[in-house]
Amino acid sequence: MAIGERVPMLDAAQRVSGRVDYVLNVELPGMLWAKLLRSPHPHARIARVDVSRAARVPGVVAVVSRDDVLGWPGLSPYYGPLIQDTPMLALDRVRFAGEPVVAVAARDEDAAEEALDLVEVEYEPLAAVFEPEAALEPGAPLVHDQGNLIQHLKVRRGDFERAIEAADVVHTEEYTTPRIQHVPLEPHVVVAEASAGRLTIYSATQTPHVTRAEVARMFGLPMSHVRIIVRTLGGGFGGKAYTRHEPLVALLSLKSGRPVKLVHTRREEFLTTQRQPIRMRITSGARRDGTLLAVKGEVLYNSGAYAETSPRVVRHGAYGTCGAYRVPNMWVDVRAVYTNTVPCGPLRAPGSGQVHWARESHADGLAAKLGMDPLEFRLKNVVRDGDSFAIGGLLEQMHYPELLGRVARALEAGEQRPARLGPHVRVGRGYALAIKTTNTPTTSTATLKLNEDGSLNVLVSSVELGQGTQTALAQIAADAASVPLARISVSQPDTDTTPYDHSTGSSRTTFAMGQAVTLAAREVTRQLLDLAAEQLEVSAADLQARDGRVSVRGAPERGLDYGQVVRAARAGNIVGSGTFLVTAKPDPITGEPGASVHYHHAAGGAEVAVDTETGKIEVLRFEAGVYAGRMINPTHCELQTEGSVVWGLGQALTEEIVYEDGRVANPNLADYLIPSFQDVPGQTGVSMAEDLELGEVHGVGETAMPTVPPAIGNAIADAIGVRIYDLPITPEKVLRALEARGDAKEER
Amino acid sequence: MAIGERVPMLDAAQRVSGRVDYVLNVELPGMLWAKLLRSPHPHARIARVDVSRAARVPGVVAVVSRDDVLGWPGLSPYYGPLIQDTPMLALDRVRFAGEPVVAVAARDEDAAEEALDLVEVEYEPLAAVFEPEAALEPGAPLVHDQGNLIQHLKVRRGDFERAIEAADVVHTEEYTTPRIQHVPLEPHVVVAEASAGRLTIYSATQTPHVTRAEVARMFGLPMSHVRIIVRTLGGGFGGKAYTRHEPLVALLSLKSGRPVKLVHTRREEFLTTQRQPIRMRITSGARRDGTLLAVKGEVLYNSGAYAETSPRVVRHGAYGTCGAYRVPNMWVDVRAVYTNTVPCGPLRAPGSGQVHWARESHADGLAAKLGMDPLEFRLKNVVRDGDSFAIGGLLEQMHYPELLGRVARALEAGEQRPARLGPHVRVGRGYALAIKTTNTPTTSTATLKLNEDGSLNVLVSSVELGQGTQTALAQIAADAASVPLARISVSQPDTDTTPYDHSTGSSRTTFAMGQAVTLAAREVTRQLLDLAAEQLEVSAADLQARDGRVSVRGAPERGLDYGQVVRAARAGNIVGSGTFLVTAKPDPITGEPGASVHYHHAAGGAEVAVDTETGKIEVLRFEAGVYAGRMINPTHCELQTEGSVVWGLGQALTEEIVYEDGRVANPNLADYLIPSFQDVPGQTGVSMAEDLELGEVHGVGETAMPTVPPAIGNAIADAIGVRIYDLPITPEKVLRALEARGDAKEER
Repeated sequence: MAIGERVPMLDAAQRVSGRVDYVLNVELPGMLWAKLLRSPHPHARIARVDVSRAARVPGVVAVVSRDDVLGWPGLSPYYGPLIQDTPMLALDRVRFAGEPVVAVAARDEDAAEEALDLVEVEYEPLAAVFEPEAALEPGAPLVHDQGNLIQHLKVRRGDFERAIEAADVVHTEEYTTPRIQHVPLEPHVVVAEASAGRLTIYSATQTPHVTRAEVARMFGLPMSHVRIIVRTLGGGFGGKAYTRHEPLVALLSLKSGRPVKLVHTRREEFLTTQRQPIRMRITSGARRDGTLLAVKGEVLYNSGAYAETSPRVVRHGAYGTCGAYRVPNMWVDVRAVYTNTVPCGPLRAPGSGQVHWARESHADGLAAKLGMDPLEFRLKNVVRDGDSFAIGGLLEQMHYPELLGRVARALEAGEQRPARLGPHVRVGRGYALAIKTTNTPTTSTATLKLNEDGSLNVLVSSVELGQGTQTALAQIAADAASVPLARISVSQPDTDTTPYDHSTGSSRTTFAMGQAVTLAAREVTRQLLDLAAEQLEVSAADLQARDGRVSVRGAPERGLDYGQVVRAARAGNIVGSGTFLVTAKPDPITGEPGASVHYHHAAGGAEVAVDTETGKIEVLRFEAGVYAGRMINPTHCELQTEGSVVWGLGQALTEEIVYEDGRVANPNLADYLIPSFQDVPGQTGVSMAEDLELGEVHGVGETAMPTVPPAIGNAIADAIGVRIYDLPITPEKVLRALEARGDAKEER
Repeated sequence: MAIGERVPMLDAAQRVSGRVDYVLNVELPGMLWAKLLRSPHPHARIARVDVSRAARVPGVVAVVSRDDVLGWPGLSPYYGPLIQDTPMLALDRVRFAGEPVVAVAARDEDAAEEALDLVEVEYEPLAAVFEPEAALEPGAPLVHDQGNLIQHLKVRRGDFERAIEAADVVHTEEYTTPRIQHVPLEPHVVVAEASAGRLTIYSATQTPHVTRAEVARMFGLPMSHVRIIVRTLGGGFGGKAYTRHEPLVALLSLKSGRPVKLVHTRREEFLTTQRQPIRMRITSGARRDGTLLAVKGEVLYNSGAYAETSPRVVRHGAYGTCGAYRVPNMWVDVRAVYTNTVPCGPLRAPGSGQVHWARESHADGLAAKLGMDPLEFRLKNVVRDGDSFAIGGLLEQMHYPELLGRVARALEAGEQRPARLGPHVRVGRGYALAIKTTNTPTTSTATLKLNEDGSLNVLVSSVELGQGTQTALAQIAADAASVPLARISVSQPDTDTTPYDHSTGSSRTTFAMGQAVTLAAREVTRQLLDLAAEQLEVSAADLQARDGRVSVRGAPERGLDYGQVVRAARAGNIVGSGTFLVTAKPDPITGEPGASVHYHHAAGGAEVAVDTETGKIEVLRFEAGVYAGRMINPTHCELQTEGSVVWGLGQALTEEIVYEDGRVANPNLADYLIPSFQDVPGQTGVSMAEDLELGEVHGVGETAMPTVPPAIGNAIADAIGVRIYDLPITPEKVLRALEARGDAKEER
């Protein structure tokens, strides 16, 4: 069995020796370098663009302005995964500071930069709007002519008003999360080459097939004529999902007749995509015994200048309002709103990460008001098998009591209060739960090629982001096809030759593509047994395929190696494909398709030390409990969960994009603070719950992350008795909150 | 219908604008350049190799000598398609002048060259042998310890001795062909990159999967861990078939830790592979009425220092002895022999091209002795449907009378003798037939990927050599899957992701891979109709797939576009594969498998003008008639045939590799003369015979070529009354032959 083994990453040696073949490394002969001129204004009409001086800079081969975009035959300039609202270059106006206005391709980066300096753009500034509340006011500046509201999702269940009146305790709070960025170590990279009526595009993308479809549509090409090639990505985290600059770089290649490469600077990463900040008002009503009766949530997502996945992100806001709890009466309003800020898209546990901050902080707030232990409150109200999911769907195989128990026991087991902590330091503990969906319905196809020597090529379009996808899929293929792991290679995406996959995101790959690999292996094995049956002159039903060998059941000495079968049949190879459709069971009440094929769920527990003099917060330990179904590679599951914890730590304590006058003020890693290894809690515990009998894989790439900020916030509240409502929880906010409580005490 | 259309090559625009992406263009970041030190001796023991000074040249990163080859863990240093007799570098001794002895990889070509100058090799020259007759003498120097005879094929049919005694006329002649070279415009190119326990090799090869298998075996890797990527080749003609320097460049990459590129100079092309020269003695016995009774052929192939495909080439010698004729009594001995010369391998119509020179010149010689018209002699004796092929197999669908008739009529139709010819010029006509096999049994697999928009990616490992394979396979796919040609892309080979194919050679691709594409299309259509049947709520049997649309038979308005079906099913794509095994019917007499799935056959006719004062030969016109079965693209069939004629012209009149002291004396295109456009006959006629009812495709990449030298030779004999026996037919040979005839006349 390869599944369940702690196999090292197949590219481990490359990773530690700096030899991974990232998209960033792609160079083609004769390649030009692209640079983008970006708008300094958050909102302005573009009165004039003159690139004539830029085009004369020696070394400059092509300059693309809106004139090229509008004049290119058959080109549709707008893209977007759900709403095609994003122009490849600003056309009539710019909608955020940082929006690309002109693109240059030159023999070297210096020439391209010099050309950018010589582009003349005349802007007529327009009134801008940066906050969703303001954007929804009547008379607010319109980011798009059709209005600033992208999506408004209402979910109603039961009778909220009556239930809240019947409640013994009602509690209302308001929470916010800031803008954050994905900060992949490798930035966005696109290398495009137009040739022979085809576009070949190397891109650091998590969605090669979706991007192919969009580029094909924009350029009026059949999908067969657009080739997206992906190599290993230096991280993605949702920021590399869906189309970005692929069409623009393709246009530069079309115009220049040369391959063109665009690599983002770190600053440009901050100006390209961010996570939606939210403001959320949440009200709960409960019986005195702690039974949750009703929840009302009002969530505002600031989507920035273009919609990206916002029409879908509201769903995460809606179910996140209920979180992991049975909520018989529910009243949810979620809105995603355009503003003149950097467009926001998916980021690890998209949409749900933000709302969980409010949801799980609020659980503790309510428990406190009830005078109840937060753990007890949670155990009383968590969803159980057979419950309906908040936005539809049947909940099954839920493990919250087990996960919470693991986390609590792990926290208990540790040292209570390190001796080194000073006299002003208070220690506290906090917990949080998380629930999230995975993209449903979606599709993954795998093709397996069993070679003449019995070795196996696995053809998939799953993207290796450093998460170990290739290793996991090889392990699945090894067992499904019964081929030794060392004789398996897993492809990287190439839409010309590797089969369809929806995306590498939403923690769907090991589950969905794993199933596709299994189906493809079944098809290959069927063909293999048919060929062997002829060769061994027995019925295929009497044969088994094990460890690279086909043999007669009950007479294992009568058999042939896989390679022998292929060679004897002169088949060259055996090729089989499998397609897996991710679908959800219908909701037991409505009969409508559920929101997700299954529900990723986790618990987190934090122990923190807060210095009441300085406000300094130290996370002493973090324990995460994640339901994994069946683990393909326990080490990787643990590492993914540790990664989620470290990510959550940054969100909890330091990460925040600051805007000044509508412009990002800290687009760099000196002013935007991600956790370093020094910030990682000395004790990070990971506990994976498995169900080996059921055996269904649950992705774990992001499940623990939404628990981290609220568990830390709850631990801080436990330590110092005050609650912080706005992420990140900085020492300043702690001190201010302590001060405010002091004031309050004094007042009393 | 796309099949049968005169569709331009898909990459036509690239070809005329110099933008085809040849393997030669591959560059990888950090890539090193390789150069090879070659033996100056045709045969020598290597006493000492010292690369220490070479390794110290600035810029040199790796030097590979026999010590590395012998010391590399798990490396098997020998390769060869049928006999593994070729070391990747000379180990104990060199066997031909030009054999690689040391390989260097350096940052630039100059540094690599400089390093080669500093390698010290001490040779102990050994006695060498250059001609097969001498090599077979007792006591001859042994090229390989096991002896110089590679293969000896004897074919006996009937009773030759008795039949020859019964013959009214017996005629014996001896013919030779020289060494020639393939002269692809793009030389051999290999770029290898070793990484992560895998080898990725870009190679200008006609046999990606066969080369993968061999590299995997040599390095002890599973085939899944060796990736051969091929782009468009600038010609191949058999010279790029099977393993060449892929293992050596891979070893340079393994040792240097960098990608390494090797590009042959033109001189190195001449030192790498050539076509076997032959000497052939042929005897025929016939009845006075022209009926051929018996043929005896003794053929010697000079294979050079390594076997390459020589164990198989003798089969072409054997059937070529009988050629296109019914030979009831046959006695054939064919030997392939090692000598200390450049190894010889397949070249367009391998093995058979040489023997046809003798076979078809001899037919005219015999006809002359019988006092018979050569056309009449041929028509009397050509094989008919139901005959046995000379080395086994059932002949069917033979078209010689038709082809000869077409050619003769075309020659008749033209102007008889251009007025511009001088008074000493004699004009004559000659004919020749050709028959050849195609590699049987072999296998081709194709995978088709029908995309969400109904466009189609065709995944094949067929190599585009300029012959138009991609276009032809796209045409076949267009009809088989009923998708518009403009919505189809055909892949290039990548053994990681494109399915198995035996080789692009032997004129097998359009036939064999075309069948695989058709089978794969059938599988895709089956799945498509199944999905559409669900969607349209009818039985799949009631549906038809036409022009990108599935509709109900008899109710065409009830239907869905292919893309709609894929999208409605959320299938992402529909993937289907097909494997075609090229097999031959059994021979009707022996019951053994036949030599070929079918038999390529052609007729050629030349009209030449010979200046009896200068010996100058001008081919006034050439007419070729080729049986094509069903033409996929008539223009390409005609161009392939024209190319065969031009190739044959070079062989007939100018091409000859000259050896001096065991070394190639003319390894360049100033001294080795290939035809230029000026040499192409003013009138080159091509006539393709089709059988649309049967519809089976016959490859036409080389069929006409073997007819060209003998048709020209026969035309010269017709013009001046003397026969030349040794190719190429130079003016000197013509003058000498005329002189000899004069002498003979004088003697009489």
